Amino acid sequence: MSDVGVTVKKNEDFSEWYTQVILKSGLADYAPVKGCMILREDAIAMWEKIQAIVNRKIQATGHRNVYFPMFIPEGFLKKEAEHFEGFTPEVAWVTQGGNTPLEEKLAVRPTSETIMYATFAKWIRSWRDLPLKINQWCNIVRWETKATKLFLRTREFLWQEGHTAHATKEEAEAEVKYALQEYQDIMENYLAIPVVVGVKSDSEKFAGADYTTALEAMMPDGKALQMGTSHNLGQHFAHVFDIKYIGEDEKEHKVWQTSWGITTRTIGALIMIHGDDKGLVLPPKIAPTQVVVVPIPYKGAEPAEIAAKAKEIADKLREAGLSVILDDRQEYTPGWKFNQWELKGIPVRIEIGPRDLKQQQVTIARRDIKQKSFIKENEAVAAVEKLLEEIQNDLYAKAKANLEQLTAAVKTYNEFKQVMAGKGGFAKAAWCGNADCEAKIKEETGATIRVIPFKKEEPQTGCIYCGQKAKDVAYFARSY
Amino acid sequence: MSDVGVTVKKNEDFSEWYTQVILKSGLADYAPVKGCMILREDAIAMWEKIQAIVNRKIQATGHRNVYFPMFIPEGFLKKEAEHFEGFTPEVAWVTQGGNTPLEEKLAVRPTSETIMYATFAKWIRSWRDLPLKINQWCNIVRWETKATKLFLRTREFLWQEGHTAHATKEEAEAEVKYALQEYQDIMENYLAIPVVVGVKSDSEKFAGADYTTALEAMMPDGKALQMGTSHNLGQHFAHVFDIKYIGEDEKEHKVWQTSWGITTRTIGALIMIHGDDKGLVLPPKIAPTQVVVVPIPYKGAEPAEIAAKAKEIADKLREAGLSVILDDRQEYTPGWKFNQWELKGIPVRIEIGPRDLKQQQVTIARRDIKQKSFIKENEAVAAVEKLLEEIQNDLYAKAKANLEQLTAAVKTYNEFKQVMAGKGGFAKAAWCGNADCEAKIKEETGATIRVIPFKKEEPQTGCIYCGQKAKDVAYFARSY
Repeated sequence: MSDVGVTVKKNEDFSEWYTQVILKSGLADYAPVKGCMILREDAIAMWEKIQAIVNRKIQATGHRNVYFPMFIPEGFLKKEAEHFEGFTPEVAWVTQGGNTPLEEKLAVRPTSETIMYATFAKWIRSWRDLPLKINQWCNIVRWETKATKLFLRTREFLWQEGHTAHATKEEAEAEVKYALQEYQDIMENYLAIPVVVGVKSDSEKFAGADYTTALEAMMPDGKALQMGTSHNLGQHFAHVFDIKYIGEDEKEHKVWQTSWGITTRTIGALIMIHGDDKGLVLPPKIAPTQVVVVPIPYKGAEPAEIAAKAKEIADKLREAGLSVILDDRQEYTPGWKFNQWELKGIPVRIEIGPRDLKQQQVTIARRDIKQKSFIKENEAVAAVEKLLEEIQNDLYAKAKANLEQLTAAVKTYNEFKQVMAGKGGFAKAAWCGNADCEAKIKEETGATIRVIPFKKEEPQTGCIYCGQKAKDVAYFARSY
Repeated sequence: MSDVGVTVKKNEDFSEWYTQVILKSGLADYAPVKGCMILREDAIAMWEKIQAIVNRKIQATGHRNVYFPMFIPEGFLKKEAEHFEGFTPEVAWVTQGGNTPLEEKLAVRPTSETIMYATFAKWIRSWRDLPLKINQWCNIVRWETKATKLFLRTREFLWQEGHTAHATKEEAEAEVKYALQEYQDIMENYLAIPVVVGVKSDSEKFAGADYTTALEAMMPDGKALQMGTSHNLGQHFAHVFDIKYIGEDEKEHKVWQTSWGITTRTIGALIMIHGDDKGLVLPPKIAPTQVVVVPIPYKGAEPAEIAAKAKEIADKLREAGLSVILDDRQEYTPGWKFNQWELKGIPVRIEIGPRDLKQQQVTIARRDIKQKSFIKENEAVAAVEKLLEEIQNDLYAKAKANLEQLTAAVKTYNEFKQVMAGKGGFAKAAWCGNADCEAKIKEETGATIRVIPFKKEEPQTGCIYCGQKAKDVAYFARSY
């Protein structure tokens, strides 16, 4: 198994472990084009689950999916100066169509505000057209120059981008919060990843936004990972693209806008947080397959009987709405199969051998804590359903405990530096609000402000860097 | 209503009618980037329905979704010479990343054979890895130089591309047929569009394939539209990318491959075939909304009672699994609403007015033939379900009759030319199999061979062009 299984331990070489788990579980692969990756079957299946959850949520609140072109003329990107400056260093440019050089080069979308909002100006005429609430599932390109990190840093990735326009500032603010709350629900209650939510500092906000709110998760190696963002765009783009409406007061007003998104990098977080030395560990609500049933035809029993029983159990689980693989392949041993499905992170394994058959029971093995139990055959479905729920909850609880362990309230800059030089994690520290202090801290420790949490804490000290009066307690961390 | 409704008749100015229906129904819009379009809410909702149908079908037969990078290095495209020649005139090239010129320019995928198969060579080792059956939903770019035609000819479009590798030639052949059959089921039994199925001539086949099979539909203006293709790639790419496996015989073999796809242009066909002078007419199985319920609060009745009844009916229909809009907007009149929903093609409208309330009935209006009926309230759900089925069948029957009317068996080249100079449509004609005759016919009449049908017909004449012994009866037509 050594060339098939993961050969390094998670807590010994985290980065190598991460790459091996992904490649060996077959979740993804490097692509033959630099900086890009291939999302394989199970990764896409998880992304489709996330898509279904997001669609269900946002459609229930009146958002609808659309698709805008991927190409953005340079002139559009340039319209919002801050936006252009923020994105232009990482834009891939199409300069040639067929054999003909283009008159104006086209950006492959790094995000779609400009191409969408040029059209919003046409679609929105009166208050009756508001709010306009759309969403798009698509590929995005950002020309990363650092080394590729599967799921976390690739030149192309998949995402969802919601874009809304509202009649009032208050409605836009509510929408920004709405999107963030739904994301939090998805991360915590489906991906089993606890997050810290709050506002970005000005230097970390989206280029062109009034302010950016975000969800940040903590990886086991002490680095934070941004799980999603929701931007209040104010009226920046409305001014630049002249998006206005005639109100009920019969006067002309500019709209208020938001945009928000999550990407395939959330799958990277899932792997890092829940995986172990044997491979992936997937939360039942996101796992492409929730249960694998393995018949174990040892000698002394009739193989046909065991096969039939395994099929019967698999069918019953499927009828209950669970996603099940019945692994009745002849060319592999049960041991080989166990290793393979553990590597792939399937939450529950059911074994059916001669003893199980005789005692009218099944053997149920949990992937996460590798515990086995023996359940009466006729109680198997209910037991598996209960177990999946338990696993989902336990994974979250474990991740939550890790997050807490990796969060330190620090009172001095020395303490702060010790945290960052050591295991890393979040350092909760008082901050004066000055971008210079933020920049110095980044320069000296590599840590940035991940969020200023919504749940405000009263600063107990002066600014961790300059000692002046603190405005906020912020979450600092090094990050992916 | 004149600026809102469609102002030309379908049989008077088909092209203008088509554009107006799309823009005014809000199905799509021109994009602010040349040659591209915006797929709006209802178009994406229909595409998502098609996605769900395709996914259900192909997953049941062991295909799984993946996602490969959009960028293909020029060198990859070049590997299969015919493939490169076929696609390179319409490739959009990325030549710059950020501010840096790329060493090798990258094609924005016009199709994904080359990027995928380079990786297949890595994934496939033994007969145990076969068949490999994957599918991808993505955007595709082909740098069209002719004028944009919404849905039918745009520089970017959405599609699904299935790619498979098999141990034997026979398996690959069966897969090619499988995909085409499933496509036919989707076109005929969901989109209500009858198709002619068969093989392409060599000059019309996919660049790099052994042969191409296709579905062709006939538009009301006498031009054919290709609805999908399924290619037998033979071992062309297997040789070029060295995709081989160790068989059960312990010898090395090259794989046999297929690829197949349908695109968002199928939505264009749907509009052309079923639409009428009032706008879209959508088949119930594909319509984003199947039923609209409009309360009609005339004087003499309590508006609250009518509103409550309308909501009750809408809820009941939803419980039965139908997609329903309850249009209780105060700011529009019932007449305005009728026009709007007719324009958008919703199959069934339910009206609830004072008389309906009094007589415990609902008024049900069909979109396709504009027939009204009055149904007892407690029978409404069953009646609507039955009606939707009827509409679905009637739309297909009508389209089938049109297809037959637009298909002529021709015996002489004069007859052939008359058909093409007149209403157009399919001309079934004997062909010798010679590409020169095919080219001459195209030059002189604009018609190409759309397919040589699977259901072989015995040629009754010599080749329609040269008079020599005919090999096949082919379907000729001008096409989109």
